[in-house]
Amino acid sequence: MTTRRYLEDFAVGQVFGSDSYAVTVDNIKEFAGQWDPQFFHVDEVEAEDSFFQGLAASGWHTACITMRLLVTGELRPAGGMIGAGVEELRWFRPVRPGDVLKVRAEVVDTRAMRSKPGYGIVRMRVETQDHLGETVQTFTTPLVVRGRGD
Amino acid sequence: MTTRRYLEDFAVGQVFGSDSYAVTVDNIKEFAGQWDPQFFHVDEVEAEDSFFQGLAASGWHTACITMRLLVTGELRPAGGMIGAGVEELRWFRPVRPGDVLKVRAEVVDTRAMRSKPGYGIVRMRVETQDHLGETVQTFTTPLVVRGRGD
Repeated sequence: MTTRRYLEDFAVGQVFGSDSYAVTVDNIKEFAGQWDPQFFHVDEVEAEDSFFQGLAASGWHTACITMRLLVTGELRPAGGMIGAGVEELRWFRPVRPGDVLKVRAEVVDTRAMRSKPGYGIVRMRVETQDHLGETVQTFTTPLVVRGRGD
Repeated sequence: MTTRRYLEDFAVGQVFGSDSYAVTVDNIKEFAGQWDPQFFHVDEVEAEDSFFQGLAASGWHTACITMRLLVTGELRPAGGMIGAGVEELRWFRPVRPGDVLKVRAEVVDTRAMRSKPGYGIVRMRVETQDHLGETVQTFTTPLVVRGRGD
């Protein structure tokens, strides 16, 4: 919980892990009811006759689970986890009740920010996997990370 | 509510609007408590001394608000709104309490899917604006849309 990583502590190839998150019928429906209220995310019976052929988590639910696992996981940049955006978010298969997700985040690039002295960008490739190790989602995100400022 | 658009009904340049969503201190904290529990999203006082210099909504909150506004808005593709992914999601400024967001979605490309006969891809550029018309977030998403299947 305590160690925070500054810009200078990141290097290409480092990998950070996370806890896990169990996807259930109830949390699929609760999330979707708020943010993605479509029949294939909120009704098991109607979902059978949908593109997903059964209840599926909203892709944004998977993205939010991923963010939660990143924030509570091993990465812990100094100043907090601040994404400037998201590049190429892809969903590979529907996430279903019973899936248990975890996240693997790998540093793919680091650089100083010219526009904001004292800060840098750490680009992370973030992979969300199920309990069998199958990838369900990937994205790359440039994180804004504080330098040590010695 | 009733008209659903099939692949053949979409054309480049069409624009679809949405209702609006009022961002508040309470809904910023509630969302972040679940999905992005960082001090600058859950505590107004501590947030003053952060990168954001005040309470700011999680970027994923803005993304989820956007999805809700898309689902409940004018777009309404047949079979539901099914994104294959998200390209180049960018956050332009922190979203704050008092912001009222709406969404503008423009068709930038349509094509049949070779891998899934009867379906096509409608690429949408999705812009989330505040009550002053300033853009707070953009992304492009390829939607999987059912053909009319005559």
